[in-house]
Amino acid sequence: MRAVDIIIKKRDGGVLSPAEISFFIEGYTRGDIPDEQAAALMMAIFFKGMDYKETAELTLAMARSGEQVDLSGIPGVKVDKHSTGGIGDKTTLIVGPVAAACGIPVAKMSGRALGFTGGTIDKLESIPGLGTSFTVEQMVKMVNETGICVAGQTAELAPADKKLYALRDVTGTIDSIPLIAASIMSKKIAAGADAIVLDVKYGSGAFMKTREQAQLLADTMCAIGTEVGRRTVAVLNTMEEPLGMNIGNAVEVEEAIETLKGRGSPDLVEHCLGLAGRMIALGLGVSYEEGERMAQERIDDGSALRKLGDMIEAQGGDRRVCSDPEKYLGKAAYSQVYYARNGGFLRKIDGYSMGMAAFTLGAGRAVKTDPSDPHAGVVMHTRSGVNVSEGDALCTLYSSRPVSAETLSWLDNAYEICGE
Amino acid sequence: MRAVDIIIKKRDGGVLSPAEISFFIEGYTRGDIPDEQAAALMMAIFFKGMDYKETAELTLAMARSGEQVDLSGIPGVKVDKHSTGGIGDKTTLIVGPVAAACGIPVAKMSGRALGFTGGTIDKLESIPGLGTSFTVEQMVKMVNETGICVAGQTAELAPADKKLYALRDVTGTIDSIPLIAASIMSKKIAAGADAIVLDVKYGSGAFMKTREQAQLLADTMCAIGTEVGRRTVAVLNTMEEPLGMNIGNAVEVEEAIETLKGRGSPDLVEHCLGLAGRMIALGLGVSYEEGERMAQERIDDGSALRKLGDMIEAQGGDRRVCSDPEKYLGKAAYSQVYYARNGGFLRKIDGYSMGMAAFTLGAGRAVKTDPSDPHAGVVMHTRSGVNVSEGDALCTLYSSRPVSAETLSWLDNAYEICGE
Repeated sequence: MRAVDIIIKKRDGGVLSPAEISFFIEGYTRGDIPDEQAAALMMAIFFKGMDYKETAELTLAMARSGEQVDLSGIPGVKVDKHSTGGIGDKTTLIVGPVAAACGIPVAKMSGRALGFTGGTIDKLESIPGLGTSFTVEQMVKMVNETGICVAGQTAELAPADKKLYALRDVTGTIDSIPLIAASIMSKKIAAGADAIVLDVKYGSGAFMKTREQAQLLADTMCAIGTEVGRRTVAVLNTMEEPLGMNIGNAVEVEEAIETLKGRGSPDLVEHCLGLAGRMIALGLGVSYEEGERMAQERIDDGSALRKLGDMIEAQGGDRRVCSDPEKYLGKAAYSQVYYARNGGFLRKIDGYSMGMAAFTLGAGRAVKTDPSDPHAGVVMHTRSGVNVSEGDALCTLYSSRPVSAETLSWLDNAYEICGE
Repeated sequence: MRAVDIIIKKRDGGVLSPAEISFFIEGYTRGDIPDEQAAALMMAIFFKGMDYKETAELTLAMARSGEQVDLSGIPGVKVDKHSTGGIGDKTTLIVGPVAAACGIPVAKMSGRALGFTGGTIDKLESIPGLGTSFTVEQMVKMVNETGICVAGQTAELAPADKKLYALRDVTGTIDSIPLIAASIMSKKIAAGADAIVLDVKYGSGAFMKTREQAQLLADTMCAIGTEVGRRTVAVLNTMEEPLGMNIGNAVEVEEAIETLKGRGSPDLVEHCLGLAGRMIALGLGVSYEEGERMAQERIDDGSALRKLGDMIEAQGGDRRVCSDPEKYLGKAAYSQVYYARNGGFLRKIDGYSMGMAAFTLGAGRAVKTDPSDPHAGVVMHTRSGVNVSEGDALCTLYSSRPVSAETLSWLDNAYEICGE
């Protein structure tokens, strides 16, 4: 078998066999197949696509390229959740405890994403003392004792995906639905879950710009799940505007706690109930409606918040954060209120621009080695769809450094106020 | 400017600007742009194509990547000729002397191709004593004194093309008309000719399998020539069967001499008159018909053969080869006649299979460092379209080693004899 023949087969619209896909991915991971051949194949796939079976084979080949987490030591159906990312997405911090409070074992590996804000792990680590580096054995033990553990990726999951993603990033081959789907699903499968709930975002603040693209990605990932025997369901969500009110690390933890106390912003609550309901449905075999009802119940009776506290404590953090987040999460050195520059109807708060504002405050990272400032971020005081007057406080900015003109300029972009 | 943006622009069907093309080719030649990005761009071009202007810019960028031969020291219109290759193609050895005998200065750089037989340089070097390594200054001097010089590529012409071709070979991006056209034309332009005659082959023994593909390639190369101010004309020729009767190195020199003596096989003579006529037309500003008439005249009056003798002598070889080739070219250690296995109508002599037969005898090279056997080859005794009887001598095989079963098997494949 020769790599060039596999490239030509795909270039000419052929369907690659499982043996051809394994040969290519294994060879590329080992370094026997060079970057230029992988780049050519990625571009051929960009143009010619892959059917569901090929995409599933690619996913499995990438999942097999590294460690495959064994969660069989945890009884019950392990349900994982994945979001394709968005501005202010603190979903894991809410739906994880809710699902765990319903008896679903939650053993989740999360990342430190590059982007506007940190990943879930960065957000969690803004809780003083909380650790996220655990072995699989430690995770299994914690889930069996506490019902939930959210850890960083200590295991090397799907290194083939990591290598291919870096290659695609510089070769113009990111925007391919089968490649995106295989990338996401390979890590979820390697992470050992039995069932997967996908939160696929679209809109200005998301990677998928249109609903049609997002639907196609969701369908592809669900088809992969079916092919490989992991039940997978997807929920589509718009990301034109930020999710919830807070964007950053510690400020998102604070909002998650508020939400678990029943004081969440309506858009965020609805979003989380939808996801948690599906996790519960997959885990317990109930309907989505029943799952959502149970999720709401666990928020109302305080058991979900207690589960978050249990998790924080088990992971070495101070559970008092749950009762008094402002006190126990710490404060940013600088804060500044951003006021409406003119009055009128607040038509839209643009997700991308708000993300960039948070990024310029220090909440995210541009390269892997950058630190993510735990206290940087934006707390919004109003959502869109209301009338505002000139001088109204629209949001408060937090940072370790004085607020820059660049940040203010992103905020000016973000708030679309139609003059009276 | 970023390489990835150029890749994405082409991927999405955009037209690359001259600045973008130069940036990419210069960066790739220097090694600043890595192979994986070049491979992705080549695959994007495979799918999205390039218009004539882009293709011409790519050609010029590749021509500029290395030495550009200056033939201005030679008075007159320097006309180059290029063949896309074929089985038994000894055209340069015939049309070069014919054109030179008409007063067209012929300063030609030829290669040692990989393939069924050697390139023109290997064929010439089967003449004892003849050298092909000259500096441009030496070439200019020889052309001014003798009217013709055929040298190996001592100058590094279009290194970007060399690097890209090697990349395309392993990434499934060879079969792209604009990339093939730019590759050929970049070397011709760097080699310094004022006008170019292209001999584009198609059929089983050629790189272009159909007449339509060959026409598209010819049109593209002529358009590049027009864009860059080098008059370019193309002739299409079928390569279903070998060109002429002999396939190899010394045996092709022998056939070229016979042809210049007026004893050439009709297909080869017609082919060479067509090419030489166009070279003469471009060089002297006469019609193709007048060019062909002049070419025939120079064969008939013996001046073309004398010109070949002058060239051989000037390049250090023994010009007596022209009067008695059998004696002065030397002989192969082994020879064997191949007989018809059955009688019937000889419908076809397959070019590819005959090429492979010559290759297995040692006439070609699979990798650059292989030697090419000067005496190996096939001399055909009959063309297709005639009736043959079982046991008729169809061809004679020459080699430095005993003839293998593999060679005979290729010949069995080559001769299509329809039973009586």
